Amino acid sequence: MLKLYSYFRSSAAYRVRIALGLKGLAYQTLPVHLLKGGGEQHQAPYRALNPQGLVPALQTEDGAVLTQSLAILEYLDEAYGGPALLPQGAVARARVRALSQAIACDLHPLNNLRVLGYLKNELGADDAAKNAWYAHWVALGLQAVEDMLARSADTGRFCHGDAPGMADCCLVPQVFNARRFQCPLDAYPTIQRIAAACEELPAFQQAAPDRQPDAA
Amino acid sequence: MLKLYSYFRSSAAYRVRIALGLKGLAYQTLPVHLLKGGGEQHQAPYRALNPQGLVPALQTEDGAVLTQSLAILEYLDEAYGGPALLPQGAVARARVRALSQAIACDLHPLNNLRVLGYLKNELGADDAAKNAWYAHWVALGLQAVEDMLARSADTGRFCHGDAPGMADCCLVPQVFNARRFQCPLDAYPTIQRIAAACEELPAFQQAAPDRQPDAA
Repeated sequence: MLKLYSYFRSSAAYRVRIALGLKGLAYQTLPVHLLKGGGEQHQAPYRALNPQGLVPALQTEDGAVLTQSLAILEYLDEAYGGPALLPQGAVARARVRALSQAIACDLHPLNNLRVLGYLKNELGADDAAKNAWYAHWVALGLQAVEDMLARSADTGRFCHGDAPGMADCCLVPQVFNARRFQCPLDAYPTIQRIAAACEELPAFQQAAPDRQPDAA
Repeated sequence: MLKLYSYFRSSAAYRVRIALGLKGLAYQTLPVHLLKGGGEQHQAPYRALNPQGLVPALQTEDGAVLTQSLAILEYLDEAYGGPALLPQGAVARARVRALSQAIACDLHPLNNLRVLGYLKNELGADDAAKNAWYAHWVALGLQAVEDMLARSADTGRFCHGDAPGMADCCLVPQVFNARRFQCPLDAYPTIQRIAAACEELPAFQQAAPDRQPDAA
């Protein structure tokens, strides 16, 4: 069985949980607590699996350990049937990947735990400065994604057409984070509409942080 | 003909230039100056093409505009023949994508121009603090990539086997950046060895920042 090294609040792990649900794939959750004891992700057992010390990691049925959420989503699409996470056609696939990377490369990495820790510990940022940093990159990132979605005739009920895919797997965890940190979403009507459509689906509901076995 | 919106020192554009060279594809360079007049990437003509206001963007032969360097690399591999940027086999492809994303998601976005600008303008970081930030993420990121490469039997003359591919397209621009900011590379012998092998190839040589039409 597939094994997912996950943390309930990790939005990168959340992406993979949604994708596994969309594909209809059963998996075992192996929690990696990112805060306990300085972070289990930094300790030798997990570092042996993933030298980056980041979640998620996916152990395949053959025992290979894969890292990086978008690489794992591509793997699931290549190795398994079920609903496709990427559409047909090279240009359409590039569009969905670009939307995904606008979140996974240019927004999320700026706001993850290790960066917020550096701001506090090395740069002496107080809570207000940390929250302003967080909100700045959320606003910049989501505005760009909103524009990409709102301007394109390819946007449908979901980020690309009328079936959920890779970009939706990235968008919903980012919206969850924005809400959690009380970042306003009013300026992003297309994102809000798509997130609401996603949240009607069991794959998205079951992947939510508060539904995870390691939820606090 | 393919048209690449590029800036000579952008490492994301540099990745795409290498890939175009490896594929043997001719293209026209359309320079976007990231510093002049507050940054041409923020101005309306470029924002109309790429709402993110980041380079690169690639205009295809059919006129579609693609963004995000890794999405563009995947497009080139799907739409054109020539040497493959990704290997065969879903697990091998996941490995190469994970190496690429370890750089493109977890290292580079923390050190790009807009982030360094925020550190200076909003957080009041001086040059020493900015350089320490830069060096911190380079060291963390390259050490993880070194471990991923050094531990795997799949690493060959290049990041994956004995032909250059997507991960090498990401690695070489990051090594260029590290050298430019005088970050020591001694702890990363595998990275140094692979970068040296890449730099023997014309595709990598011709993509170098100082060979670009917009080089300062």
